[in-house]
Amino acid sequence: MKKLIIYGIHPLIEAITSDYNIKKIFILKKLQKQFLYFNNKSNSYKKLINLSKKKKIPIHSVSEHHFLPIKNKNHQGIFSIISHINTFKIKELLPNLYKKKINPFLIILDNITDVRNFGSIVRTSVCAGVNAIIVPNKNTAMINSDSIKTSSGALFKIPICKENSIINSIKFLTNSGLKIVSTTIKSTVNWHNINFLKPTAIIFGNEEKGVNEKYIEISNKIISIPSIHKNISSLNVSVACGIILYEVFRQRKTLKN
Amino acid sequence: MKKLIIYGIHPLIEAITSDYNIKKIFILKKLQKQFLYFNNKSNSYKKLINLSKKKKIPIHSVSEHHFLPIKNKNHQGIFSIISHINTFKIKELLPNLYKKKINPFLIILDNITDVRNFGSIVRTSVCAGVNAIIVPNKNTAMINSDSIKTSSGALFKIPICKENSIINSIKFLTNSGLKIVSTTIKSTVNWHNINFLKPTAIIFGNEEKGVNEKYIEISNKIISIPSIHKNISSLNVSVACGIILYEVFRQRKTLKN
Repeated sequence: MKKLIIYGIHPLIEAITSDYNIKKIFILKKLQKQFLYFNNKSNSYKKLINLSKKKKIPIHSVSEHHFLPIKNKNHQGIFSIISHINTFKIKELLPNLYKKKINPFLIILDNITDVRNFGSIVRTSVCAGVNAIIVPNKNTAMINSDSIKTSSGALFKIPICKENSIINSIKFLTNSGLKIVSTTIKSTVNWHNINFLKPTAIIFGNEEKGVNEKYIEISNKIISIPSIHKNISSLNVSVACGIILYEVFRQRKTLKN
Repeated sequence: MKKLIIYGIHPLIEAITSDYNIKKIFILKKLQKQFLYFNNKSNSYKKLINLSKKKKIPIHSVSEHHFLPIKNKNHQGIFSIISHINTFKIKELLPNLYKKKINPFLIILDNITDVRNFGSIVRTSVCAGVNAIIVPNKNTAMINSDSIKTSSGALFKIPICKENSIINSIKFLTNSGLKIVSTTIKSTVNWHNINFLKPTAIIFGNEEKGVNEKYIEISNKIISIPSIHKNISSLNVSVACGIILYEVFRQRKTLKN
């Protein structure tokens, strides 16, 4: 089974606090002195060192060649290895949300192919209070070392549901009482002109092609974020996602059911 | 003087339609047949070819080694060269906005260091209707081939003001009647709880350090985008920027002065 390298301070902190089974942490030998220095200076380093002591995770100092697989990454001289990221099925997860009296707020990522966009969307989702992210099974290559890093470790903090059929998942969500909202530049309804107070799942599309037409057809609402400029019409998908997720956040904080 | 390579279809279209002096366009020889094919298939390619004909810009087909400086980039087999990106001074630009009866909407980027973030912010700014972007002189390395590409050519569509002193620019804007808003996680005021209808300049900070304390001190308001999750507290700066710029957009579209 392919192992996952987790590099960087924040991703490691989030992995440990999410009870992933971290057996060892590797620190670049020549940086160890600096780490001892940072241990007194930087809150993040201090937190990581304290956490690893508390959880009895040994820290090994190793030479540079151990960092070869991640040599061009911003690894901050530190990495660990886990076996996999936990994933879920929406059919099992949704009833638990209802049981906990949570008003479901889900997103569906339709074939996002840029790892940085994927990581950024995961990070925004955790901050905005999304309960789960649904991704197509074939697209799970996005769940890797780099998106863990770009998400700042947020990938450990939110359930990722791997689904064989997005169509079937959408139908399941509709039957479970969720409003399905697709984002497409073809819509003339502005993102803030629909009501997000009820249980909602929002679909975000591929960077080039947008949301699949088949998913748009079975959505309850389609929305767009307009542009002042006629040629530069579409935002980066992770930015569009941030704008819409925080509109849900705003409405649920300030409006009443 | 250092020349700027513009690569990719959209950036080239935006450069040409912004009346940049494009003398030649270079197409990868082995792709030329495909381009003729795309010319019939893809709207963007067709638009670029038509534009270059209209503006009498010759298209040269060249071998792969001409693409060496951008070989790892998503150049789509096409590039051109310009001498520079036009930049401005806010003291000269602001009176023109008032003259045109535009309600100023400006952003100040305090030392953004990630080229992709910079490009994405420029793109969002153009879409949201920002009138100008103020950047510190020392930080203008961000205005390069890669941010042109990440901005999808939006860098040609918005005035970039290069300023020696951001402090002095903020003071000038304050004296000119603009409300200065800083974004910092230290604020307890949510981003949607302030009024953006009056002339406004919003400061976004460095990815690691946030907005410089000196700028926060002389701001009229400080705002933040809260996070549901206590550890993963800050959004990617380009996402945060999108959320706030589109809140300005929303307010100016839906509320009255």
